[in-house]
Amino acid sequence: MPSHAEKREGSLAIVGLGPGKREYMTIRALKAIAAADYVLGHSTYLEPLQPLLDGKNIIASSMGKEVERARQAIELARAHTVAIVSGGDAGVYGMASIVLEVLEHSGETVDVDVIPGVTAANAAASRAGSPLSGDFAVISLSDLLTPLEVIRKRLDAFFSVGIPVVLYNPRSRGRPHNFAIAVEHARKYLDGTTPVAIVRNALRDDEETIITTLAEIEASTEKIDMHTTVIIGGGESRIWRMGDNVKGIITPRGYHRKYVY
Amino acid sequence: MPSHAEKREGSLAIVGLGPGKREYMTIRALKAIAAADYVLGHSTYLEPLQPLLDGKNIIASSMGKEVERARQAIELARAHTVAIVSGGDAGVYGMASIVLEVLEHSGETVDVDVIPGVTAANAAASRAGSPLSGDFAVISLSDLLTPLEVIRKRLDAFFSVGIPVVLYNPRSRGRPHNFAIAVEHARKYLDGTTPVAIVRNALRDDEETIITTLAEIEASTEKIDMHTTVIIGGGESRIWRMGDNVKGIITPRGYHRKYVY
Repeated sequence: MPSHAEKREGSLAIVGLGPGKREYMTIRALKAIAAADYVLGHSTYLEPLQPLLDGKNIIASSMGKEVERARQAIELARAHTVAIVSGGDAGVYGMASIVLEVLEHSGETVDVDVIPGVTAANAAASRAGSPLSGDFAVISLSDLLTPLEVIRKRLDAFFSVGIPVVLYNPRSRGRPHNFAIAVEHARKYLDGTTPVAIVRNALRDDEETIITTLAEIEASTEKIDMHTTVIIGGGESRIWRMGDNVKGIITPRGYHRKYVY
Repeated sequence: MPSHAEKREGSLAIVGLGPGKREYMTIRALKAIAAADYVLGHSTYLEPLQPLLDGKNIIASSMGKEVERARQAIELARAHTVAIVSGGDAGVYGMASIVLEVLEHSGETVDVDVIPGVTAANAAASRAGSPLSGDFAVISLSDLLTPLEVIRKRLDAFFSVGIPVVLYNPRSRGRPHNFAIAVEHARKYLDGTTPVAIVRNALRDDEETIITTLAEIEASTEKIDMHTTVIIGGGESRIWRMGDNVKGIITPRGYHRKYVY
């Protein structure tokens, strides 16, 4: 909170919208949008907000313009109530760090609030049973901002300790091979029977979830794109069935060691 | 979805409530509670739901009774609309895996839905700037269900690749030393200047956030309890300041390598 002397009229909310449908936004995020005079974001994320945006100043921009968008939001927040939106959680591969870095560099003092949302890891996991029940790691396979060698080392570190790993940005037209690289690293440490969940458009109308294994993953690779989150199970993860149907993945929390079901 | 022939009257929603205040629940979670005839959960999580629970059958139980609670929820879900609630995201150190394991063991067929929520990692991060902007890992320091040797190996793996690490259940009366062990592992790989966020009761009325460093963490250890989430920054994380004030942590996404602010 700025002291009274520094207090400006404006404010800046960095809002995580969750997986896409308005239903998965938090009430706090809805309120922040409702209160805003200006809403900035990628057009994909603004679309599902539509009736909420009536009468507001909307600044939609495209992918790759994140730094400009952040600068504009900070500029407007001197005098206006501004919300800059991000899919999922704004703090995970989202707009929060970019806005805060630009803000710091600008030397401006702005009343800024980061509003968390349901990130893709948790959204995807919810569609695949309970694959992330305990410790887990999250990694983006995009080498646009992180060198591939760093990504490889991190994959080794994660898979070597048998935890479930969530892959963000698993496969794009620009780098179709990074997913195969991740699978190769996983196979160094994990059995072919290790379950894998491929969740495309989690919690959206055109959602698709595939439960497969590390041995059979190639058959589903074509389904994987930038709207997909992939969860590679850990050493204790197993397929979850109801009757004869494969329903998802369970990573037990270790209760089986302490309790009898 | 069960086929029509198998269809029962009841259903079971496993609901992540987010960080605690109703404001941080998703609309979907609110609707699931509103639709339920029975709501089961730990009393800590039922409390903030109060006006929503009027006229419903409430089954509050205490910590350590998770397996019993899961069994009871499944039993009730044969004929009723049941919601079993979990703090944060039900899929992360929550009720989802326990319910699904008990369900699988029971052989029952139930219409079950996991509803994600904002997990403590994202809630805490939002109060500390943007510490988890890129790849990160989540680990519980409780050795109640995971052997300490496994926890130690995972800590080494995470810290050795320079990613931010979120510590759940960082310090309890029963195991006050596990936090010191985690710090010891972090210091093997990270500078003393590495920023650390200690977020107690994130997004609740009595929230407290401390931003410190790995070198100075001992001065704040007494503040850490089971209502606290600790984020140890990665190799690229740094303190975020506005004017002269320490505001939080920024883990840059690597845009500085591609863009000039």
